[in-house]
Amino acid sequence: MLVTCDCVVEGKHFLPRHFSAAELGCRTMTLNISDIGAMGGRPLYALVSLGLKSNTPVSYVEELYRGFLSELNPLGASIIGGNLTESDGGIFIDVTLIGEVKQGRIVKRSGARAGDAILVTGSPGQSAAGLELLLHSDPQNSFDRHPLVLAYKKPSHRACEGQAISDSGCATAMIDISDGLLGDLGHICRESRVGAQILRQKIPVSEAMVEAASCLGEKPSEMFMKSSDDYELIITCPQDCIGTIRAAVASASDIPVTQIGNITDKHDGIVLIAPDSEQQRIKPSGWDHFSR
Amino acid sequence: MLVTCDCVVEGKHFLPRHFSAAELGCRTMTLNISDIGAMGGRPLYALVSLGLKSNTPVSYVEELYRGFLSELNPLGASIIGGNLTESDGGIFIDVTLIGEVKQGRIVKRSGARAGDAILVTGSPGQSAAGLELLLHSDPQNSFDRHPLVLAYKKPSHRACEGQAISDSGCATAMIDISDGLLGDLGHICRESRVGAQILRQKIPVSEAMVEAASCLGEKPSEMFMKSSDDYELIITCPQDCIGTIRAAVASASDIPVTQIGNITDKHDGIVLIAPDSEQQRIKPSGWDHFSR
Repeated sequence: MLVTCDCVVEGKHFLPRHFSAAELGCRTMTLNISDIGAMGGRPLYALVSLGLKSNTPVSYVEELYRGFLSELNPLGASIIGGNLTESDGGIFIDVTLIGEVKQGRIVKRSGARAGDAILVTGSPGQSAAGLELLLHSDPQNSFDRHPLVLAYKKPSHRACEGQAISDSGCATAMIDISDGLLGDLGHICRESRVGAQILRQKIPVSEAMVEAASCLGEKPSEMFMKSSDDYELIITCPQDCIGTIRAAVASASDIPVTQIGNITDKHDGIVLIAPDSEQQRIKPSGWDHFSR
Repeated sequence: MLVTCDCVVEGKHFLPRHFSAAELGCRTMTLNISDIGAMGGRPLYALVSLGLKSNTPVSYVEELYRGFLSELNPLGASIIGGNLTESDGGIFIDVTLIGEVKQGRIVKRSGARAGDAILVTGSPGQSAAGLELLLHSDPQNSFDRHPLVLAYKKPSHRACEGQAISDSGCATAMIDISDGLLGDLGHICRESRVGAQILRQKIPVSEAMVEAASCLGEKPSEMFMKSSDDYELIITCPQDCIGTIRAAVASASDIPVTQIGNITDKHDGIVLIAPDSEQQRIKPSGWDHFSR
């Protein structure tokens, strides 16, 4: 049995002008589903605790629930309860999600071993780039329909891919990227007591990210460095299991899987290797709600 | 398996000047434990989701957790996870509590039958009276140490009593009084599709409530009518099981159990009978967060 909870707060995690209620419902449930999926589990039951303003319309709450259910229903999961309270300081949505994982098949953050390959699904950083575009959007130059804005507003979880990876029995560690690629790789390294070597030129950069970088005047190869809640997966596995992991993911979806580096000894730390072989030592901070 | 969640919000459920962090932690956990106990269950695992202001001191959070644990530890329950986020609109504490109940022993709100006795533990309304005293308190005339203020600030759950009642197999319905005696009796009546007759002179009024009523210039016999989060239990059972229920409660604590009336047919509604036999029909509204 797996239990997770995650909360989104108005003004901190979302600006109401950027999200319809249904989009907000989808996004909030997706990030909880992602947490269950990243341990190889299947979501079953959700509890939704809402803090609403006294002027929140009932139709807004109905749309929120449509969003929740549009993510839960395809997985056979449902909302079994929750709480409702007034919160005039701003809307918050706290979801507790209960799931299950097969005996012995749970994939934790703590099992990575030196020599393992480091794989990622999709193109990490797309969501952060989408948020940047949204914040730079104006009526004359609107990015509202840009694919990365959609990636930010309606991210995809990789729960089915996570289950398939868990079923393969090959992954040594797994985490979803909610704190950015380096932040979450840092979680694996800390909990597994290992280091990591990342090859910068191996990091998958989508065409949409190249285009977004050009709009934003940034280098595409730098954009994955930021905090980003993409809900892609980082997976570690022995080198001879890479094919099995790829096959497992392919059984669930056509999302690409890319090897971006290898796990090393703890004392080597986390190192980013540039195409010219220059090594940059990384201190992953992860997301800190209280940093300024 | 039982799962409940309940949330308290600064300014809505508590005023920080009235509660230390440890008291707030105790109170928040108590109301969740009460929900599990009122179904006859035993709490096992809590998830705590906190929304904190950027200037909330770490020591405040530590004291909150001391409060949570002081309620969970005696029951053998623990905190297994949670979430932390910034919420500058005000502190909120959302607790999800997972518990277990023996197969076939769950006591719901929906099982009351016409002819059943209605029992309550303790003296419902004490917590509301305590809050009134606290709001009327001033430096010249402080009620800070009044027993009902303590009943409000540090309420007791009846989880052990609830488990003993469930084990007896005699209760047809049970609920904890978090919305006031009449509000929660209303929940039982609605979900069991029954009515209720309450004898006003049978409602237990403690000496402390008589004294509080005198301080507040109210009638002691009216004070139970208000919304009150006491976390006492309302229990319904067949008339020939009253002794068994009393014995079950006595096995857990010395809290008194009082029969205050009987369940009737649905079409009779909820009726309060005065000592002079005058009947007053009640429309229980329960607690509405959004009423004005």
